[in-house]
Amino acid sequence: MDSIFSDRITDVPRSFIREILKVAIDPTIISFAGGLPNRAFFPVDELRDAVGRVFDINGRDIFQYSNSEGCLQLREYISHRYKKQNLNIPVENILITSGSQQGLDLLGKTLLNEGDGLIIEQPGYLGAIQAFSIYKPAFCPVPVSDDGMNLQALQQVIESGEPKLMYTVPNFQNPSGISYTEQNRADVAHILRKTKTLLIEDDPYRELRFRGSGKTSFQALLPDRTILLGSFSKIIVPGFRLGWLAAPAHIMEKIIVAKQATDLHTTHFTQSIIYHYLKQNNLEDHIARIRDAYGRQCQAMLDSIEQYFPKSVKYTKPEGGMFLWAELPDNLTALELFEIAVKDRVIFVPGDPFYVNKTNTNTLRLNFSCVDAETITVGIQRLARAINKLMETKS
Amino acid sequence: MDSIFSDRITDVPRSFIREILKVAIDPTIISFAGGLPNRAFFPVDELRDAVGRVFDINGRDIFQYSNSEGCLQLREYISHRYKKQNLNIPVENILITSGSQQGLDLLGKTLLNEGDGLIIEQPGYLGAIQAFSIYKPAFCPVPVSDDGMNLQALQQVIESGEPKLMYTVPNFQNPSGISYTEQNRADVAHILRKTKTLLIEDDPYRELRFRGSGKTSFQALLPDRTILLGSFSKIIVPGFRLGWLAAPAHIMEKIIVAKQATDLHTTHFTQSIIYHYLKQNNLEDHIARIRDAYGRQCQAMLDSIEQYFPKSVKYTKPEGGMFLWAELPDNLTALELFEIAVKDRVIFVPGDPFYVNKTNTNTLRLNFSCVDAETITVGIQRLARAINKLMETKS
Repeated sequence: MDSIFSDRITDVPRSFIREILKVAIDPTIISFAGGLPNRAFFPVDELRDAVGRVFDINGRDIFQYSNSEGCLQLREYISHRYKKQNLNIPVENILITSGSQQGLDLLGKTLLNEGDGLIIEQPGYLGAIQAFSIYKPAFCPVPVSDDGMNLQALQQVIESGEPKLMYTVPNFQNPSGISYTEQNRADVAHILRKTKTLLIEDDPYRELRFRGSGKTSFQALLPDRTILLGSFSKIIVPGFRLGWLAAPAHIMEKIIVAKQATDLHTTHFTQSIIYHYLKQNNLEDHIARIRDAYGRQCQAMLDSIEQYFPKSVKYTKPEGGMFLWAELPDNLTALELFEIAVKDRVIFVPGDPFYVNKTNTNTLRLNFSCVDAETITVGIQRLARAINKLMETKS
Repeated sequence: MDSIFSDRITDVPRSFIREILKVAIDPTIISFAGGLPNRAFFPVDELRDAVGRVFDINGRDIFQYSNSEGCLQLREYISHRYKKQNLNIPVENILITSGSQQGLDLLGKTLLNEGDGLIIEQPGYLGAIQAFSIYKPAFCPVPVSDDGMNLQALQQVIESGEPKLMYTVPNFQNPSGISYTEQNRADVAHILRKTKTLLIEDDPYRELRFRGSGKTSFQALLPDRTILLGSFSKIIVPGFRLGWLAAPAHIMEKIIVAKQATDLHTTHFTQSIIYHYLKQNNLEDHIARIRDAYGRQCQAMLDSIEQYFPKSVKYTKPEGGMFLWAELPDNLTALELFEIAVKDRVIFVPGDPFYVNKTNTNTLRLNFSCVDAETITVGIQRLARAINKLMETKS
């Protein structure tokens, strides 16, 4: 190929979501398309206080080049918080990243050769598909549904050539909102234990559970082979681009080499702001407020869907997070629905970008974190009208 | 290979410099090993004021996810500043990166296939060697000396298979401190014009000229094929990890895809702080203070070297930047010198990590940005003693 570009960059899917979000600027449109945390819960005043303390306490050194692993106090905080949740992750195994997205890039960089097998959920997180595409793996999609991963399909994929990596979002998955049950986690762990496959457990929504009980992390089930990703984006602010990656020591060593080659280190200034914020404020109370709001909004969406959608539309019932997932009757596509819905001033993300090998699917992602309950009801009514309209044209 | 790691990560050289810097913590050691800007010039109070304005003016939205290209006002500032320096770079062609190091990673990601030819200066910038190593290019080293690039060697490398990329630091190069003359720049541009080779012009020290006159940027000589990297690290603070990349539009399009896959975007919070700092303060005056200090310190180092080093040691005479480069007689190695020097409590960086294909070299890098003139004199005296000691053991 006579291109000036690398092969890897030509393989990366364009972000369809970015295109959709351009439509969302119109204030008369009700958008279930976003993937944003609700800005009403950004603790702006508390962060302002925390910045003052960074200047008072850290002084000049916070502005110098610093270590690649990240701010020690913040990593200690993360380690202690995991300890309270019965996860044993020493500080040395934690690296601060520029958001979870960078964690995914560093893992692709460190672990993937071209053509390496990578198990990915179907549907799966678009950002992960983009990050990993750069490193040209062989994607092995395994379906997920209400219980978690399809065990038979997982077994088949493993038998047909033991993929090197598996990527999972076991809590309130993006895009589907589903969570793996305890039994499903145990079964997945049992299957993986017989392989050499490494597990990437991406857990940004962990703390946003508004219903049901917390589940066991894969990091606890498979500690020697799990790389756990976390993020401050959904519980404090996304704009600081701060997340972390917890990996066994022998893997961490190489990830730090990749981190140095990639950007030397993530700024310690924002890390220190977050640390001082966490030290002075009650994070549990803050998260509880977010959870309550998201839970109410999710319930409003579920109630409206129950009331207004045709019964032939299936949908998930999330226990946390920011998204739910709907499946139209087989003969409809979400892209067709989008065309009709946008005219009635409601939008969502058609399911296609969440698959590595499917187009014109009948699935869609609905976000409930950024829209209040009343608006959700209006939006779902509009969307129901659009579905009915589309069904009429097909009957 | 039965490794869990990617081939690319096993090829990345370890940062020898990081190891050396661990020794530098001892306060009785005089360190010429660092590569840090002088923290005395971090405008801490002014940045504190700027943070206040970010909270007052930007409000809540600065903490939300944002665009991948970076803060528009900051990109406009960069574009205007280039305009004043007779470089025509529209805002759309500028992307904010997490330091220049990330610019290098994004360029490797976007442009390099395994085995692609990459011209690199010899000696060359270690951080670039690390960043590009990830993408497994075929490095084509071309020597640089006081005038700039060795044209005959450049011509030979191009004739033996036209490399896809060339990487250069034409102003006050790291590690050597040399700058390309106007004639050398014109000659290099003339040679490249007959090829399809793209040029990466890494220019972090641009503003730190304390002697001689400014030279024409490759971006002006070869605008359609030059990607220009800049940084706030050396003129404001490095700890924010903020740099930028200016590329022709058709290349920028793909770089933005890579940026999204890598970390979505660099935090707009620190970008906005820098913007407000630039708006309220006189950057020229600030840079002049840094330049004066570095110029005096460089002169102190040159004077001491002239006075104390054996005449058989050659060295460069930088017109700016933070480093100079010394070459010992052929029969000595800088690693042997390091062993002796550290015992006399002075350190530097032996030249080896700045080469892709040489070890046990007789070259060393000396940093003058972080040590005051008096201490420089003492340090160079100690180093001269160490050189003499080493020469004695060899004669």
